[in-house]
Amino acid sequence: MSATEYTVTGMTCGHCEMSVREEVGEIPGVQGIEVSHESGRLLVTADDSVDDAAVLAAVEEAGYTAVRA
Amino acid sequence: MSATEYTVTGMTCGHCEMSVREEVGEIPGVQGIEVSHESGRLLVTADDSVDDAAVLAAVEEAGYTAVRA
Repeated sequence: MSATEYTVTGMTCGHCEMSVREEVGEIPGVQGIEVSHESGRLLVTADDSVDDAAVLAAVEEAGYTAVRA
Repeated sequence: MSATEYTVTGMTCGHCEMSVREEVGEIPGVQGIEVSHESGRLLVTADDSVDDAAVLAAVEEAGYTAVRA
């Protein structure tokens, strides 16, 4: 298991968190997601190492921007 | 046809607008909905007069607060 932290900008409410959660949750191997629109923190737990590019793309797909924290 | 305007507080993004739109759209007789999270303006168009109590309850159901503008 590994956990990787990202900073997401643009989320304003719980619906935004859900959008991020849905998209990131579709990445193969992802086991857990913590996300807060208040802090902008996204923590992704995965079987092996998280595929950074996939996470960044998933957040973008949801309509926001992420960087590795 | 009649149009009634409300001021909604608490919406922060397009997802919030969609939530309001979904709930208000379930009210019988409602023909059109304009809603903006930026202005907080909700305009409801209906066959006859809009049922104020139903609109206020629908917005509350979506998680926000409305008053007749």
